[in-house]
Amino acid sequence: MTLEWLARTGVPWSAEPGVLASRRLDRSGWEPAGTPAAVAFPRSVAEVQAVLKGAQETRTPIVPRGAGTALTGATTAGTGEVVLDLAGLNRILDLRPADGVAVVEPGVITADLDRAAIAHGLRYAPDPASLELSTIGGNIATNAGGLRCAKYGVTRDAVLGLEVVLPGGELLRTGRSTLKGVAGYDLTGLFVGSEGTLGVIVSATLRLRPLPAADTTIAAYYPDIESAAAASVALAEARIQPVLTELLDQATLDAIDPGLRSSGSALLIVQTDDGSAEAASVLAEGAVSVQVSDDPDRLLYARRQALPSIERLGRPLIEDIAVPRSRLAEAVRSIGEISARHDVPICTLAHAGDGNLHPIIVAGAYGTPIPAAASRAADEIFELALALGGTVTGEHGIGVLKRQWLAREVGPFSLDLQHRLKAVFDPQGILNPGKAL
Amino acid sequence: MTLEWLARTGVPWSAEPGVLASRRLDRSGWEPAGTPAAVAFPRSVAEVQAVLKGAQETRTPIVPRGAGTALTGATTAGTGEVVLDLAGLNRILDLRPADGVAVVEPGVITADLDRAAIAHGLRYAPDPASLELSTIGGNIATNAGGLRCAKYGVTRDAVLGLEVVLPGGELLRTGRSTLKGVAGYDLTGLFVGSEGTLGVIVSATLRLRPLPAADTTIAAYYPDIESAAAASVALAEARIQPVLTELLDQATLDAIDPGLRSSGSALLIVQTDDGSAEAASVLAEGAVSVQVSDDPDRLLYARRQALPSIERLGRPLIEDIAVPRSRLAEAVRSIGEISARHDVPICTLAHAGDGNLHPIIVAGAYGTPIPAAASRAADEIFELALALGGTVTGEHGIGVLKRQWLAREVGPFSLDLQHRLKAVFDPQGILNPGKAL
Repeated sequence: MTLEWLARTGVPWSAEPGVLASRRLDRSGWEPAGTPAAVAFPRSVAEVQAVLKGAQETRTPIVPRGAGTALTGATTAGTGEVVLDLAGLNRILDLRPADGVAVVEPGVITADLDRAAIAHGLRYAPDPASLELSTIGGNIATNAGGLRCAKYGVTRDAVLGLEVVLPGGELLRTGRSTLKGVAGYDLTGLFVGSEGTLGVIVSATLRLRPLPAADTTIAAYYPDIESAAAASVALAEARIQPVLTELLDQATLDAIDPGLRSSGSALLIVQTDDGSAEAASVLAEGAVSVQVSDDPDRLLYARRQALPSIERLGRPLIEDIAVPRSRLAEAVRSIGEISARHDVPICTLAHAGDGNLHPIIVAGAYGTPIPAAASRAADEIFELALALGGTVTGEHGIGVLKRQWLAREVGPFSLDLQHRLKAVFDPQGILNPGKAL
Repeated sequence: MTLEWLARTGVPWSAEPGVLASRRLDRSGWEPAGTPAAVAFPRSVAEVQAVLKGAQETRTPIVPRGAGTALTGATTAGTGEVVLDLAGLNRILDLRPADGVAVVEPGVITADLDRAAIAHGLRYAPDPASLELSTIGGNIATNAGGLRCAKYGVTRDAVLGLEVVLPGGELLRTGRSTLKGVAGYDLTGLFVGSEGTLGVIVSATLRLRPLPAADTTIAAYYPDIESAAAASVALAEARIQPVLTELLDQATLDAIDPGLRSSGSALLIVQTDDGSAEAASVLAEGAVSVQVSDDPDRLLYARRQALPSIERLGRPLIEDIAVPRSRLAEAVRSIGEISARHDVPICTLAHAGDGNLHPIIVAGAYGTPIPAAASRAADEIFELALALGGTVTGEHGIGVLKRQWLAREVGPFSLDLQHRLKAVFDPQGILNPGKAL
């Protein structure tokens, strides 16, 4: 394939092996077939338009890319594909505290926007674990969740409007600059979570929220997972809306520090920001111990240590399912049984308030093939999610890895409809082909 | 046109003039041409499917209808159309407090769902002013807002999943039963706000939230609209997230009680539910008077009296625009100028926290033609919204009345794209034709 068309756009690009290798993978472990043809580095909306126009004319597949932190293969690129690296579009274009709104380019690092908002007593609420690395554009493309979305919503809830370049190079504006609006179909929502398969986001108008005055953080250990899950449900029954409710199972506690076993078999970390004093007494029901602190860092330490600790055991496959909140304990128990049956270590972290679980499968040593038992365990975890009335992805997306599970979850009729929607935006199928659907 | 096909479905229906007349209009004042052919009263999902199958085969236009409280003409029906009255599908199918989820049929009255949730210490957060009359299905079809959406979000934020019957009769399931999920494109969001033009919602899985423990309500009078708007913005700068922030302008206060003029020229009513004690002191800045109460009904009385009071002046045209929050005072001032220029009374209420204004034009006596000056004033209000970077509809929708304004707001490229999306769902254009786009 010739890249003459790309050279003619005037957009900086490279086909050097080192550059191609650095933009070929994401954090999923998925290996695409071959190597992309080139990486383009647009510096403006017009340059994104030029690349997409040329791509449409030459029917060249385009893989939009932010920081490459996807856990699903959504930003992997193989033979013949051109990576569109949006990291260069990284300006906060506008931040209007009185309006509670920011306008940003897609390459802005999520935590950088949050810090800019904090300077005005506001914040950008969605906080995926990757927030110091991942970009707003990538967060929007996957509808990223996070810890405090239990109270403040996922990325979709923070996106008011978008500017999107479509195949062919047209610029589409969706949504609005106001906090409310219902003019026309919700195109904004359709792009959120579409994994770069409908268009390339080149700017986003985002909602900022008041920064709460004070947080209270509570850590409670329980003798078993059922007690911890019950305590998490009891919060809602006591009319308490926590900012976050993080659950760590026994396997995770063991990975962090086997000494924690004496504290209990499950840890619940809860944060409130509305001054409600009752959360601790609700959590005390059935607990081994309860600690309260206004220093969140101290109590969230165990949560932050979880993934690095698990990574020391071997290569982690970070799964992501969601179940109705009442089935949480059942889900964790069943994951424990799957782990035992396949003799594969699985540590489960959960955003308990949302029923969103991250079973982390320790899949052998780094650099070795993924053991068949680990893949079978993953499949059983997805089966479990569907059997419990849940979903195969709570916040990470479909990418490449879960395409067959998407088909299982939504069925052929919905899947066909979604393909027809994609064709409205991308009739030639050049945008991130083979991803998301 | 023969209705034999409808009779063959076995679904109860009527073509009696009284029944047709009772289902022909909504609350917009829009008069469709002619009278609908029939009204169908399905009692089950299967009956909705039967009607839509027959409609597709006979190319009969269908107008889905809840309580008919639309303010835009979205639920008006004229010559040859068949009204699909969904009021009979009015069961709360499931309410799972531990999951924070309810599953309801579309004809459930919004306030009934809220009351059912309150019995479990939860609530259905979206609270359009029509909540004692309007249905969940209609709320979803318009993406209804309300007062407390400033903190708790609009209808879209409460909808987790839908069951929708498409033209032809197929049943589509969208979304999920879990609080989080990102499998596939956001079809749920696409149906929310689509005004019955993409499919007929036959069940909805909705998010319930913990009922806050206590509300504090504050009423503050200001000498002018600028001070009131500034106070509303100052709340966010003080890191306070009110549940609602309602603004009443001088014309509205005059309509309620000319004696209120001695209190001030603008009234701000603010409610918080997170125990924050500072709101009153923030609001005191620049205020004539501030009252605090834990009895919301007393201080919200003026707000509740606003519309009935304005209705005594003449026929109200309830407009609905949204602007960036910082432009609120400018918008209210400019609406006052439009009122003076056209010599048409306009009273403005606003959900100030969202920048969502309801200018209510008093358009002559009931039963008389709408004065040309009132229509011109309405057009200037929409011009104003767009000029201030806002939208022509914050929460009521497009319906029939604002179609040309939608085209102005989103432009021909987006509008054409939206028509192509509609064609994916409704290739023959039988669903609520001429509405929403």
